[in-house]
Amino acid sequence: MIIVMKKNAAEQEINAVAEKLQEKGFKVHLSEGVERTIIGAIGERTQAIMEYFMRQPGVEKVIPILQPFKMASREFKPEPTTVKVGDKIIGDGSLTIIAGPCAVEGREKLMEVALAVKEAGADMLRGGAFKPRTSPYSFQGLEREGLEILAEARKVTGLPVVTEVMDPRMIEVVSEYADILQVGARNMQNFFLLRELGKAGKPVLLKRGPSSTIEEWIMAAEYIISSGNEQVIMCERGIRTFEKYTRNTLDLSAVPLIKQLTHLPVIVDPSHGTGKWELVEPMAVAAVGAGSDGIMVEVHQNPSEALSDGPQSLMPDNFESLVTKVRAIHEALQNI
Amino acid sequence: MIIVMKKNAAEQEINAVAEKLQEKGFKVHLSEGVERTIIGAIGERTQAIMEYFMRQPGVEKVIPILQPFKMASREFKPEPTTVKVGDKIIGDGSLTIIAGPCAVEGREKLMEVALAVKEAGADMLRGGAFKPRTSPYSFQGLEREGLEILAEARKVTGLPVVTEVMDPRMIEVVSEYADILQVGARNMQNFFLLRELGKAGKPVLLKRGPSSTIEEWIMAAEYIISSGNEQVIMCERGIRTFEKYTRNTLDLSAVPLIKQLTHLPVIVDPSHGTGKWELVEPMAVAAVGAGSDGIMVEVHQNPSEALSDGPQSLMPDNFESLVTKVRAIHEALQNI
Amino acid sequence: MIIVMKKNAAEQEINAVAEKLQEKGFKVHLSEGVERTIIGAIGERTQAIMEYFMRQPGVEKVIPILQPFKMASREFKPEPTTVKVGDKIIGDGSLTIIAGPCAVEGREKLMEVALAVKEAGADMLRGGAFKPRTSPYSFQGLEREGLEILAEARKVTGLPVVTEVMDPRMIEVVSEYADILQVGARNMQNFFLLRELGKAGKPVLLKRGPSSTIEEWIMAAEYIISSGNEQVIMCERGIRTFEKYTRNTLDLSAVPLIKQLTHLPVIVDPSHGTGKWELVEPMAVAAVGAGSDGIMVEVHQNPSEALSDGPQSLMPDNFESLVTKVRAIHEALQNI
Amino acid sequence: MIIVMKKNAAEQEINAVAEKLQEKGFKVHLSEGVERTIIGAIGERTQAIMEYFMRQPGVEKVIPILQPFKMASREFKPEPTTVKVGDKIIGDGSLTIIAGPCAVEGREKLMEVALAVKEAGADMLRGGAFKPRTSPYSFQGLEREGLEILAEARKVTGLPVVTEVMDPRMIEVVSEYADILQVGARNMQNFFLLRELGKAGKPVLLKRGPSSTIEEWIMAAEYIISSGNEQVIMCERGIRTFEKYTRNTLDLSAVPLIKQLTHLPVIVDPSHGTGKWELVEPMAVAAVGAGSDGIMVEVHQNPSEALSDGPQSLMPDNFESLVTKVRAIHEALQNI
Repeated sequence: MIIVMKKNAAEQEINAVAEKLQEKGFKVHLSEGVERTIIGAIGERTQAIMEYFMRQPGVEKVIPILQPFKMASREFKPEPTTVKVGDKIIGDGSLTIIAGPCAVEGREKLMEVALAVKEAGADMLRGGAFKPRTSPYSFQGLEREGLEILAEARKVTGLPVVTEVMDPRMIEVVSEYADILQVGARNMQNFFLLRELGKAGKPVLLKRGPSSTIEEWIMAAEYIISSGNEQVIMCERGIRTFEKYTRNTLDLSAVPLIKQLTHLPVIVDPSHGTGKWELVEPMAVAAVGAGSDGIMVEVHQNPSEALSDGPQSLMPDNFESLVTKVRAIHEALQNI
Repeated sequence: MIIVMKKNAAEQEINAVAEKLQEKGFKVHLSEGVERTIIGAIGERTQAIMEYFMRQPGVEKVIPILQPFKMASREFKPEPTTVKVGDKIIGDGSLTIIAGPCAVEGREKLMEVALAVKEAGADMLRGGAFKPRTSPYSFQGLEREGLEILAEARKVTGLPVVTEVMDPRMIEVVSEYADILQVGARNMQNFFLLRELGKAGKPVLLKRGPSSTIEEWIMAAEYIISSGNEQVIMCERGIRTFEKYTRNTLDLSAVPLIKQLTHLPVIVDPSHGTGKWELVEPMAVAAVGAGSDGIMVEVHQNPSEALSDGPQSLMPDNFESLVTKVRAIHEALQNI
Repeated sequence: MIIVMKKNAAEQEINAVAEKLQEKGFKVHLSEGVERTIIGAIGERTQAIMEYFMRQPGVEKVIPILQPFKMASREFKPEPTTVKVGDKIIGDGSLTIIAGPCAVEGREKLMEVALAVKEAGADMLRGGAFKPRTSPYSFQGLEREGLEILAEARKVTGLPVVTEVMDPRMIEVVSEYADILQVGARNMQNFFLLRELGKAGKPVLLKRGPSSTIEEWIMAAEYIISSGNEQVIMCERGIRTFEKYTRNTLDLSAVPLIKQLTHLPVIVDPSHGTGKWELVEPMAVAAVGAGSDGIMVEVHQNPSEALSDGPQSLMPDNFESLVTKVRAIHEALQNI
Repeated sequence: MIIVMKKNAAEQEINAVAEKLQEKGFKVHLSEGVERTIIGAIGERTQAIMEYFMRQPGVEKVIPILQPFKMASREFKPEPTTVKVGDKIIGDGSLTIIAGPCAVEGREKLMEVALAVKEAGADMLRGGAFKPRTSPYSFQGLEREGLEILAEARKVTGLPVVTEVMDPRMIEVVSEYADILQVGARNMQNFFLLRELGKAGKPVLLKRGPSSTIEEWIMAAEYIISSGNEQVIMCERGIRTFEKYTRNTLDLSAVPLIKQLTHLPVIVDPSHGTGKWELVEPMAVAAVGAGSDGIMVEVHQNPSEALSDGPQSLMPDNFESLVTKVRAIHEALQNI
């Protein structure tokens, strides 16, 4: 890190900072400029160390030089991490399509949509069993019954199942039923949950928080990896901006950035990313163009009757069209 | 709510929507304009109902007319809610000052700062026992031992204690020690936690999420109130914007808005709201000018040694200056 | 528009609003709900009319129903607008690639890069002659000499020229040299400029302002169209958000939205949209996937020596790779 | 500035960067860390220099150390700049209240409101003669006639006049009539305008752009100062965020920050900052609490009939109440 001293910092303040840096194990380089002294400090910096030096007398600011994440970084592990689920590998250059309803609404309805997405070409099935929503007056999910229905759908269709886990207490039960544990956008910085997912022994699909920087998102992955689980799949699903036509602003530049900064696979959810079903197909194609390892979309056989997220859900025939397009684009990119 | 039909909506589509509205208990008003038909629907709308009609054939958009919150609204309960803690009442026109360190770092250190903030004029003591942070490599709090230290400080100083609860499993234990249970910004939409706080029988201090609209924040209060607990104190602590000089952008307009839209008391946290100790005093004074019922600030006897949030912590003498100013401004406003 | 009356609005307030609406030519529909009265007003609303009713006694809020733009809307003109420049048509389903340096830096350098982008497959040449920048101490452009160099490059390469016009006084001179007049992001709401561009008789490339909603951006196009010039090409170039890895957040969902809401062609600028040359190619491919009519990218033969925007400029060989990919993806999408 | 080399940068790449730095007049400090080499470069950096080094082989990133503004900075000029207009001095610790309608709508109406705001305690009169608005179908101002009316109001009331100048061509004519030239938020980065205002010989009130960082805002002031005019008054008027209850989010932390970073006076516009007249008074009081040198508010004798900005305009009696409160708070702060 770099410590910039105030213009009028006294020599003894500069020396005191330099000494404290050495005490804490840093190698110190002093640069006296025309306007002020700058101290380069080489060593392992943490947020706490930075804050410590920010408050030393004579210090103007502390600038971090290196990224705060380690085990998630591509520098730490240059070869890409792949996640194998059933006979599908996420992150190996292939394209994984995850589809299903926002919430599991009942046995028959889920079976119908699960068969439909399988028929249309999905690789995995998604569906929420726990659905706490912004309003306390909305449908909150079928809970454990929903998990059982998902497991049955997996048996019938052969599609691996992705479902959300919202609370550390649920990891065990959800792990019994699901192939991939999803961390929802609102839980991206639920550090208790992240730490326990590090010990869960199942792949984790980590959604980006709607107001999280890419750095914070990678730090959330770092929590899981440093707790023992490298099987993390990043999922871009839009960030909150001032634009109102869309529910969120899908940040597709996150796709090449995650590939550049980390060794983790990354997929895109254009359903939450836009909030409008008409935009799901073009943004799914765009995501594949940006280099995404997969897409996750909401499909419902009758979106107008969906208990949640109807406006952003595709009908099975729209989904089939989407699958055709994204597979064609993926193949065209592979062949260049 | 208002349902706007597409320009070329067929008559039978319009009729079908009108019929479905009536089936669901709405009174229907059709307005045929030059360009399109608009349907006014009077009745109790929910998110699910709105989403249902968004996906009906011929519908262009659905516009909500009334606010989604009820029990938190000033219309529902015109007189202000007050929260009594010890002999202090929050929301009765008086000014409540809550101060203390970000994290409880040890028995002696907490006692020292607790006595200092009491001496300087604080009404309540804050301090975190559980401190999961953005980086997994940072200090994570003293946990239960921290709670015991807080309780001891209360005994010695007489100051009621505010501390954060992060997980539904902790509500019971934290309630044993704390006078006010704080919901942190990152947990504002942890609906499991909110629902269980509705049954906790203790006042809740609800921080605004850094990317939450005022409406979503009030909906979070609605979760707690509708689960049985009206003793909710709103706390503005800054929202995430593009500005980089400050850690967050403190949105003081939230203070008069919360007073206008709800019956709940509202306080301001200028420490997290700015991230820089030099800005804490002017923004605390500004908050009182905007009509805040109180302020919550971080104080540490030696911020450069603080294990977290040092850069935004005041020293006891800065805090004393702040108390003098905010009390003077509050009194001046009372006397106009 | 819809006028929502306050809960306790007096009958005479409701009647007064209804009468004023009728005076102003609106057809009025009253809906008395359980909680409040809502007035539907059918007729031509403007911002001024809405603000007028917002301040009438007893009014809680005024909600617009229809979009504020007319002549730019797809409802007004269902068939797509195309812009013919030389033998290239933008908006007819083909893909237009515009490339060149940020600024014209000199005759020889421009000729070299113009020939290189032509060789690599560009359809048009871009380059700025006027370059006022955030800092008064940066390079400000070659001005008129830059325009002459651009015109010469057009003659040599046959590529039409796109360049920015920043001030109404310059429209005439820039029109002498350029084929398409570009409105920069910072000028998107320079209404004097927009109005005069309506009379310029040349196609206008209208960049989205970094903090403009899609609605505001379309309203800027409406200014140009309503002043007499329908030849407007929309250009998404990223919006300002909290994310810091990228210079802006490229909002690709704007592409299908512009196509849905308006009849205008839309292209994407991934150079400004990301600020990092490594992200330009994946985001260009993504833009084509989203349905963009073209892309505009910065190319420089030696980005490290560029006088502006070096970090986001491609070298000619990177650009050639980009052209190959976007053409392949565009063709693959056409063939589905 | 600091140049961070890539982990695997070759020695010759490091040497080449160091040499180029020396050629450009920088003093160079190399720090070889465990993970990578970092080069400290002492000298005058510009945006162009930074971009140049960003593209050198082996460079990972370039980090600026010092602020990009000079003449506006408090370091450059420690004593505060004051602006004398008539017998009022802005920036000397006193409180300046500027009030008047959004737009000059006619002679009689302006005289009436000018007398009313003078009576209520305003120090200066504001009013717009040129009013291009988001929609081309809205009222666009009385133009030159408006300026004449403003000048007459000054003669009658003795209040100095603040009005906006939107185009370099207008500076001369507006200067004939106005005491302070206002740069509107949308023009904050109209560098042609800023440069010519540097030669205008009149104080400039510089509004912050709705998506401008504080650094960019100060850079706009730097344009004016470096062109010859130090009489710049900064005006915070809200930034664009995701919050929808308010038109903008008023960033009051900008007040103490401008005072800390620059020597310029700063005032606050709570009318545009909130967009709602009910919020104007509490936010004006808050602004004074934050240390503002003044406030600027919109007042209209009959806001419901205002041709623009009616919803955020105060009536003369609300304004009188506001003046009483802000003067009382200002005095209380002075007396502590």
